[in-house]
Amino acid sequence: MLIDGRRQRTIWVEKDARTVRAFDQIKFPHEVEILTLRDVADAARAISVMQVRGAPLIGATAAFGMALAMCEDASDGAIDAAVNRLAATRPTAVNLRWALERMSDRLQMVDIANREECAFREAQAIADEDVAICKAIGDAGLALIRNIALSGKEGEPVNILTHCNAGWLATIDWGTATAPIYRAQEEGIPVHVWVDETRPRNQGASLTAFELLQQGVDHTVIVDNAGGHLMQHGMVDICIVGTDRTTRSGDVCNKIGTYLKALAAHDNGVPFYVALPSTTIDWTIRDGIREVPIEQRSADEVTKMTGRTADGRIETVSLTPEGSPAANYAFDVTPARYVSGLITERGVCGANEEELSALFPDLAA
Amino acid sequence: MLIDGRRQRTIWVEKDARTVRAFDQIKFPHEVEILTLRDVADAARAISVMQVRGAPLIGATAAFGMALAMCEDASDGAIDAAVNRLAATRPTAVNLRWALERMSDRLQMVDIANREECAFREAQAIADEDVAICKAIGDAGLALIRNIALSGKEGEPVNILTHCNAGWLATIDWGTATAPIYRAQEEGIPVHVWVDETRPRNQGASLTAFELLQQGVDHTVIVDNAGGHLMQHGMVDICIVGTDRTTRSGDVCNKIGTYLKALAAHDNGVPFYVALPSTTIDWTIRDGIREVPIEQRSADEVTKMTGRTADGRIETVSLTPEGSPAANYAFDVTPARYVSGLITERGVCGANEEELSALFPDLAA
Repeated sequence: MLIDGRRQRTIWVEKDARTVRAFDQIKFPHEVEILTLRDVADAARAISVMQVRGAPLIGATAAFGMALAMCEDASDGAIDAAVNRLAATRPTAVNLRWALERMSDRLQMVDIANREECAFREAQAIADEDVAICKAIGDAGLALIRNIALSGKEGEPVNILTHCNAGWLATIDWGTATAPIYRAQEEGIPVHVWVDETRPRNQGASLTAFELLQQGVDHTVIVDNAGGHLMQHGMVDICIVGTDRTTRSGDVCNKIGTYLKALAAHDNGVPFYVALPSTTIDWTIRDGIREVPIEQRSADEVTKMTGRTADGRIETVSLTPEGSPAANYAFDVTPARYVSGLITERGVCGANEEELSALFPDLAA
Repeated sequence: MLIDGRRQRTIWVEKDARTVRAFDQIKFPHEVEILTLRDVADAARAISVMQVRGAPLIGATAAFGMALAMCEDASDGAIDAAVNRLAATRPTAVNLRWALERMSDRLQMVDIANREECAFREAQAIADEDVAICKAIGDAGLALIRNIALSGKEGEPVNILTHCNAGWLATIDWGTATAPIYRAQEEGIPVHVWVDETRPRNQGASLTAFELLQQGVDHTVIVDNAGGHLMQHGMVDICIVGTDRTTRSGDVCNKIGTYLKALAAHDNGVPFYVALPSTTIDWTIRDGIREVPIEQRSADEVTKMTGRTADGRIETVSLTPEGSPAANYAFDVTPARYVSGLITERGVCGANEEELSALFPDLAA
């Protein structure tokens, strides 16, 4: 999608075929800065400190990290070491493990001498496939938005609420939750997006707002507390969010606070959809609340906030009194009963094992 | 309650009997600064910019504002002018109008020459009555906390979640939602408070955390998104929040995001209580969602955040990209069906017209 009017992806390989570049997403929305990943340590750090984030982009970055590792040492031991190093960066994301397993399986099939080239090719394939998947999610979700537009008043925008950033910046291109929005924009359907700021890391206020602004999509930033009020007053037609991990029964683990929005949508009869590539489904578990380990991150993310001062400096400020502890659970689980449907690359289905398995019989087995 | 180990109220009159002082709550939690209110304009400004906030404290400040107005001009016209000026500061708070009416009615009964003294006496009475009311709310709510403590494991704290600041800083002393907590502390019942930071103005992170810390109550600050996750995992025993306005049928208008927590409490079988002085009940309306006007405040409160830098400067930083609009609804309405009970100065009752009227037959008529 667009940054400063130029069509971009979130991660790409330079012409030297050995240098990987990505946008430093910590610098958004105030600066556009490009990150250079030269080795596996760079890739691991970028994932760990969230310079790259979002399940699909984490997966692709880990894959490119494997490729960078192969440049230095392509031995079997190096494959395992790189997998372990990259897997440890974020405990919750299932795409990360999926991408690392795919890379590892593929690399073990080729000679050491060919592993570097093979790894870059495979990582690029992962990235390209993700773009195709997101586009397909966009096409599937477009139908939902179009139906709302057709049932509403001519010219009135479809009001969509989203949480966190499941935008193109979380993927390689298009995004997951945003893909139907960008497709609707392409089709000339008027849309307006309520952007949850998404504390503690403000991915909505800093990333979703940024990419919608860059793309020219009408939007309004709100605090995470506001969605329920908007839904009570008929100001939201549909919620579309992403997910970091979905169980085979349709429970959705996503950014902390998603569950609260799903409850409000349910209470007010607002459809609540989750957009996801099938790589995000964890077919090994059913009960999201009991079985998904929830990452706890630094209390500093809650007690401090970084932004730009009026005169352009980037500053970090404390919000809490010195001495007050804070807890920082990064994700929550929305039970399948509150999810109206899942928007996947193969179409929309109900959030339950039967429909998910019917859509993905090859993966569900 | 305590500030720097000294027992304080939030608003008081100096010995000259003409100067009103209050804590500048915008400066919390990083600085303790005392505000001097010399005339009605000072009082109106303090309410309007939220140097004083919280329904009961707003009421008391408005009452003292009336008294300050009488120092300059005690005519009938001046009474009306002061009422109008102070009433315009915050559109949603019902206590504000209640206090102004009481002051106006009282002042019209006395000669112009005696109005100044009468006004200070009446304003002080409003403040003193509020302290007694909050103490009584604390006693009523204490029973709820004690019951949870008795049914739990010996020595394990009762986990209480609260939203925004319905603490003593929002009242004159004790607070509403915090009064049962401070009473439990006095009784030696171990408590731990989950403090919602409460975006956009962070009254939880900056005020509730501050007063609990000053009082030595164990607590943890969380983002507003986190409560649902905690409740799903049995980490919250009871929610206690305040209210800015309660309808006669028990709908609760409180800080934006309260409704989302009530939904999560309902979904997880966690009792959800609202602590309130009866002055906060609006007996003229029933349907909170349709009938309570919701204040919209400046978008800057959403897009900007103020805090203290590591080297002690107070800075304001922007969180959103320049060009992204924001909306700022200050309150939402929690329907009575999600409220387990109301903790009032006359005891606990169900959130419905029958029980509320039975407890307050004198007011409900």
